[in-house]
Amino acid sequence: MDIRTIGWKNNKVRIIDQTKLPQRLVYLDIDKMEDLWQAIKVMQVRGAPALGAAAALGVYLGVRNYSGSDWPGFCRKLNAAAKYIASSRPTAINLFWGIEKVCAAAQENNKQPVVKIKQTMLEEAKKIIRADVCSCRKIGDYGSRLLKPGSSVLTICNAGILATIDYGTALGVIYSACKQGKKIRVFSCETRPLLQGSRLSCWELYKQGVDVTMIADNTAASLMAGGKVDVVIAGADRIAANGDSANKIGTLNLAVLCRYHRIPFYIAAPQSTFDLKLKNGRGIKVEMRDRQEVTKILLKKTVAPEGAAAINPAFDITPHELISAIITDKGIIRMPCVKNIRRIFKGETNAFKRNR
Amino acid sequence: MDIRTIGWKNNKVRIIDQTKLPQRLVYLDIDKMEDLWQAIKVMQVRGAPALGAAAALGVYLGVRNYSGSDWPGFCRKLNAAAKYIASSRPTAINLFWGIEKVCAAAQENNKQPVVKIKQTMLEEAKKIIRADVCSCRKIGDYGSRLLKPGSSVLTICNAGILATIDYGTALGVIYSACKQGKKIRVFSCETRPLLQGSRLSCWELYKQGVDVTMIADNTAASLMAGGKVDVVIAGADRIAANGDSANKIGTLNLAVLCRYHRIPFYIAAPQSTFDLKLKNGRGIKVEMRDRQEVTKILLKKTVAPEGAAAINPAFDITPHELISAIITDKGIIRMPCVKNIRRIFKGETNAFKRNR
Repeated sequence: MDIRTIGWKNNKVRIIDQTKLPQRLVYLDIDKMEDLWQAIKVMQVRGAPALGAAAALGVYLGVRNYSGSDWPGFCRKLNAAAKYIASSRPTAINLFWGIEKVCAAAQENNKQPVVKIKQTMLEEAKKIIRADVCSCRKIGDYGSRLLKPGSSVLTICNAGILATIDYGTALGVIYSACKQGKKIRVFSCETRPLLQGSRLSCWELYKQGVDVTMIADNTAASLMAGGKVDVVIAGADRIAANGDSANKIGTLNLAVLCRYHRIPFYIAAPQSTFDLKLKNGRGIKVEMRDRQEVTKILLKKTVAPEGAAAINPAFDITPHELISAIITDKGIIRMPCVKNIRRIFKGETNAFKRNR
Repeated sequence: MDIRTIGWKNNKVRIIDQTKLPQRLVYLDIDKMEDLWQAIKVMQVRGAPALGAAAALGVYLGVRNYSGSDWPGFCRKLNAAAKYIASSRPTAINLFWGIEKVCAAAQENNKQPVVKIKQTMLEEAKKIIRADVCSCRKIGDYGSRLLKPGSSVLTICNAGILATIDYGTALGVIYSACKQGKKIRVFSCETRPLLQGSRLSCWELYKQGVDVTMIADNTAASLMAGGKVDVVIAGADRIAANGDSANKIGTLNLAVLCRYHRIPFYIAAPQSTFDLKLKNGRGIKVEMRDRQEVTKILLKKTVAPEGAAAINPAFDITPHELISAIITDKGIIRMPCVKNIRRIFKGETNAFKRNR
């Protein structure tokens, strides 16, 4: 695609500032770990797979100016950087996965000179970026088989180009189907409170020439009752061993609506979004964000009375029994459950042995 | 209550301009039918019961300057005014009911001098206002029996003081329960696109000292899954003979979520909201409003890419099988169906013989 959400350019992390979309396409060049932490926090860069790359690069930024040549000193710096970046946002597992990838690369090379360790870490971060491009294409290819020509797909938040490196998970499925010549109609839930659906998904789908219609989140049931939705596809921020999936607040609403209206509900996510150490969704920490994201539209226009209470969980957990299938880069997991999830990742379980 | 949504003052219609809330409490004095039409259209005054009063007063404004003294001429003027006001918004039945009330009052007095006919019409409009105050209190009293002390109630849009004359239907139930000393916690869905939940319901509940927390509409399922919601109560804009109910877009979402999470889902509305000539909800005309209400927050801040499509139905239809009970001013209709609805309005069916 012609949009690159995050990359390494001129020795800096280049990201699209997603808070400026859809009005302006602005790139930010970041060379300080603290600035990257902030960019993650305020969601200038967001989306689980993109956060994996951002976190890996962030840790690298945190250690690259280390002037010593000793492993123990470097290791302390590394651990501090890893801990710091990990404190930016709690729910998307990919963020922690990205951190661990670069930390493991350093650890494995701890006999090498520090300058070489740093180089290996940067290479590892770049590998995450290349792997994501590849994995999104695979998700797209697998998932597109589930879409018939003429299908009408409803999605929430942004699990597209802007949530990954350059293709998307849920929207990647749509892009792949479109490439195959299938005519797909997309309904994009605006996704309050931060409007990633209208601001980001509509923007990129429209730019890619996909037939997209924006709706208020409240309109989903009415569309389904009217027979206007064939399939719902959402991304995920963390998937437990039994298939319970955390994703943007509102995803559970859609899954329940799908069950009632007998519409397939799919999650699309790479292997790196699975957290097989968690038995089920109850173990997933849901980020609570500032109430002002709800009481002030885009932190500007106040829409609630001064002083009124508001709660603002950023995610909800969809139980696996409401998920028709999970579309991964390793294949489609139907009736998501511990057995079916383990089967598809067989032989790759080492990838999940993480220490957090 | 200390807030009066609509009334007749100094020979003008005085309304609260609801587009200015919650920032400012501004009253508008309207003495031209065309201005009232506009106020209804842009929702400076809204809410089914309030629209009944507004429409009745609107028709009166349209004829009160008729200078002739002949019934045929006056009748033509009256019909034109009725038709004009009826064109403002299509879904809330109360609007048409209010128009017919004043027209019928004129018709019944067509042997009287025109000046007397006008006077009767104004009296009829004032009667609608008084009757609404009374009917909301009854809804509150009946409905409050359904709320236990400590109940947590979720609601959508505004079916409160600002949707009626001064008490509310769904929120009236809450006010009555609170008056009885029951501690009630309210979650108010912000209600995109026009945010009547955050702007209006939060404002009036907060002002009345009710414990209210605002949420993005997307948060409803998550709250229910977490056991935080005991009851959902919504208002209605039109209820068919079998109990199918039109209300603000998003109401159907909540009804489906309630079914899945085994939470009672109630509609609260006066008798004037029933349209017994309609067999079921399929006959209800759903108003489609300007896409810009979705693409621009409060018609100001653009949140979608220029040119992107959007659809903006103002209402959805909740089928009666998802409604646990309808709380009316005549009593509570459990398992809403043709038989149970007819039973509660027995002997008052003449009130429904309307010609539209």
